[in-house]
Amino acid sequence: MNQTLGAWLEDLASEAPAPGGGAAAALSAATGAALVAMVCNLTIGKPRYAEHDQLMRDTLVEVTGLRAQALQLAADDADAFGAVSDAYRLPKDTDAQRQARSAAIQHALVGAAQVPLRTAAVAAAIIGHAERILDGANVNVLSDVAAAAASARAALDAATINVEVNLAAMKDASRRDALRAELDRHAEAATIAASIVGAVRDRVRG
Amino acid sequence: MNQTLGAWLEDLASEAPAPGGGAAAALSAATGAALVAMVCNLTIGKPRYAEHDQLMRDTLVEVTGLRAQALQLAADDADAFGAVSDAYRLPKDTDAQRQARSAAIQHALVGAAQVPLRTAAVAAAIIGHAERILDGANVNVLSDVAAAAASARAALDAATINVEVNLAAMKDASRRDALRAELDRHAEAATIAASIVGAVRDRVRG
Repeated sequence: MNQTLGAWLEDLASEAPAPGGGAAAALSAATGAALVAMVCNLTIGKPRYAEHDQLMRDTLVEVTGLRAQALQLAADDADAFGAVSDAYRLPKDTDAQRQARSAAIQHALVGAAQVPLRTAAVAAAIIGHAERILDGANVNVLSDVAAAAASARAALDAATINVEVNLAAMKDASRRDALRAELDRHAEAATIAASIVGAVRDRVRG
Repeated sequence: MNQTLGAWLEDLASEAPAPGGGAAAALSAATGAALVAMVCNLTIGKPRYAEHDQLMRDTLVEVTGLRAQALQLAADDADAFGAVSDAYRLPKDTDAQRQARSAAIQHALVGAAQVPLRTAAVAAAIIGHAERILDGANVNVLSDVAAAAASARAALDAATINVEVNLAAMKDASRRDALRAELDRHAEAATIAASIVGAVRDRVRG
């Protein structure tokens, strides 16, 4: 968050595996939240949109919180990735070591799955806010509602795959199924995001 | 580019109309390009992927150039937006002024449409690179190919709508049609991006 955009992109492009797709997903979510906030800021206080004023004010508070969460998740992603990598590097010479290593990997995978799962939840929440403000948004920034939805959808898609990567390596079937069920709850938001983009495009084309 | 991530997001969320969805789209494209570069960097030099080495090296050069272009477009977007705003603020008290103002607006709109059009082209090119490296990419970072495609698709979707916004206000039908034809050439990339995300998800799920 205190890194410059250029330096962050340089780190992302480098052969260091973190930051990677998980952190990029979190940044996409933060970008989506910021765009929803901009639309709220440019709608609040305008007489023409007075009836939507309270919704915009409430939404602004919510997405400001979601943006902070998303930025935290970008940092958490690198930590969780490091924990999994560290566990894979544990010694495996004796049976006791192999058992300890396997347990450590499984423990780290649960933690690593939580980060993209929370990113998916944040992205889905942002898409929900974009949907709710769509009708009352200042028409001059309607395209930014679509940009917000597109950005949050990218976050959701990438986060979903990152959860799946961790689930695929997880041995505890009941925990895996519980995490997958939680993930599936956010899947519909991708469809909603696509319909927001489509609706804005139709309105812009007239 | 020299701004911190936190400050950039703060500006994006503010009631200043720029940076807005156009700059966010350009950053999404840059993020997609950086993720493709990361995958190339983590595949180059690995014996297991030797047959794809040249493709990865060539792709790395291309996407590094595309990332720089995308960052430039983020800056250009604010300038183009300012030019349109300035034109709308010209005086319109006399016929001569109204004519000059209208001509200035139309001129600025053409410039403003070029920026998201170039962003769409850059995003489509990144999706093309993601598609080409998909089969030869280090399987450990396959999810990052999907994240790259998702990010570039968000850029393409948002940029497309931003071009349409400018086209809708443009009076010169032949110029409008030419720009729309150019825009339509990039539309297929959105479908390709979706199929990359789907293919990676299927492979991860196993």
